[in-house]
Amino acid sequence: MTCNVLINGQSEQSVPVTDRGLAYGHGLFETITLNQNTAIAWIAHLTRLKTDAERLLIPLPENIDQLLEQDLAKLLSLQSVTPDRMVLKITITRGCGGRGYAVEDSVSINRIVQLNPFPHFSDMPSEQGISLRLCATRLAIAPQLAGIKHLNRLEQVLARSEWHSSDFREGLVLDAEGFLAEGTMSNLFWCQNGVLYTPELDRCGVNGIVRQRIIGIAEEHGITLVSGRYTPECLNTADEIFVCNSVIGIWPVINIVMNENDTLSGSIGPVTLKLQSRLAAEGIY
Amino acid sequence: MTCNVLINGQSEQSVPVTDRGLAYGHGLFETITLNQNTAIAWIAHLTRLKTDAERLLIPLPENIDQLLEQDLAKLLSLQSVTPDRMVLKITITRGCGGRGYAVEDSVSINRIVQLNPFPHFSDMPSEQGISLRLCATRLAIAPQLAGIKHLNRLEQVLARSEWHSSDFREGLVLDAEGFLAEGTMSNLFWCQNGVLYTPELDRCGVNGIVRQRIIGIAEEHGITLVSGRYTPECLNTADEIFVCNSVIGIWPVINIVMNENDTLSGSIGPVTLKLQSRLAAEGIY
Repeated sequence: MTCNVLINGQSEQSVPVTDRGLAYGHGLFETITLNQNTAIAWIAHLTRLKTDAERLLIPLPENIDQLLEQDLAKLLSLQSVTPDRMVLKITITRGCGGRGYAVEDSVSINRIVQLNPFPHFSDMPSEQGISLRLCATRLAIAPQLAGIKHLNRLEQVLARSEWHSSDFREGLVLDAEGFLAEGTMSNLFWCQNGVLYTPELDRCGVNGIVRQRIIGIAEEHGITLVSGRYTPECLNTADEIFVCNSVIGIWPVINIVMNENDTLSGSIGPVTLKLQSRLAAEGIY
Repeated sequence: MTCNVLINGQSEQSVPVTDRGLAYGHGLFETITLNQNTAIAWIAHLTRLKTDAERLLIPLPENIDQLLEQDLAKLLSLQSVTPDRMVLKITITRGCGGRGYAVEDSVSINRIVQLNPFPHFSDMPSEQGISLRLCATRLAIAPQLAGIKHLNRLEQVLARSEWHSSDFREGLVLDAEGFLAEGTMSNLFWCQNGVLYTPELDRCGVNGIVRQRIIGIAEEHGITLVSGRYTPECLNTADEIFVCNSVIGIWPVINIVMNENDTLSGSIGPVTLKLQSRLAAEGIY
């Protein structure tokens, strides 16, 4: 790619060391699939970005939608080749400078928009299913930050560092009290007797866009969906399990290694397949 | 200043957008006072940096001490004027790239060394004492990250955003369970009947270098020091209260506004003065 990053609308590859995203993780990001140059679930991503920015006291310009749309159009126009699928990453930071943790109102945000290749999964996890591995790293209970896709992601980095084997496409992460939370990079769902379950995200976790859409599809199709606090043992009796995010769509889970002596096994079920095809029919994945 | 930043030993002002410090806060920092071009408590800072890097799986080069010493010497040689005091900030990030949260062993760290002016406090807080304000933002209980001066500092940013009045030099922050933790940028101590108290940092908070030194001085001078979990009410009966960090040294606390109707008031006491003069005698502040 000739130019794959714009910072505040300009072709740049780097941010000042004084950026508060680097110094403190004071910022947000969105990871969006581009399908034939169209940003999937664009409105949903922008809505989350704006909601989360408010919670993190990051003042977005009123025309942020327009600015990001212009950035995307400009980046696409600069590509010599545009593959069918790409990944768009938007990062918003609280800008540069300030004395320590305090920041003046006059400091403006930094807007970073990057185009990246779509990852290739040769093992076809959407069709074949994946194995999960239970991580020892726990997510702290932090209601003030729960749901936000912010730049403080050390817990995810540490959880993901726990395995190197390509046998595991994702890790299962619990909260500090031992309840199911999410994957390191994805949200978690399971189905039992036709009811869909997912962990509540009021204390930790990321309020994923595909998770939101799955909740919407369940409502539209009369599938009962319950979110709450569940122990890992709840997965023992699940009929189907899957994880999801904006790049992978839905990955069915066919194995979960809880520890050396305890592996759950299952198969890809009808609810998972229905949700996958529903998302596909909407042009989403 | 002509050049005040070196990145990996080179004069630079910016880091690539792919830096994992920016993307995930996967990194550490140290803030060090330079007193007549000498880095105060240099060994203690380097020791913490190395300990914390290991906990965050950040592989430091074996000669990191030497590299940082060279960086500092080079930065100083490039200054046209070197004031009596400056602030040296060292940031180490896990480097650039990687696919998502996973990082290859081959990725090398980024080493950012900055010289900044020493802050001027016209209200002479070391001598006059300061007012603290109790923050609503709580620190999550996260033993895996506790003590580390890492780049995931959203809690501190949010706590510091709670007030704008210059009447308050610092905020008092509790942990998620309501126990005393620290200041937004400093560690907390108080003294009662000759015994020095400080919150334990096994679940949250930063293991401050001045805090470490104060614990050492207390031992050397036969002052009993106890660290543990304490409620804010413990401060009601304290004889002396102070906060500390590597730039401010020790600031006596003479007021704490707990809420609109509840303000603790006190005065600067002999233990605080003794510790201040002890640090000064060691050339530290």
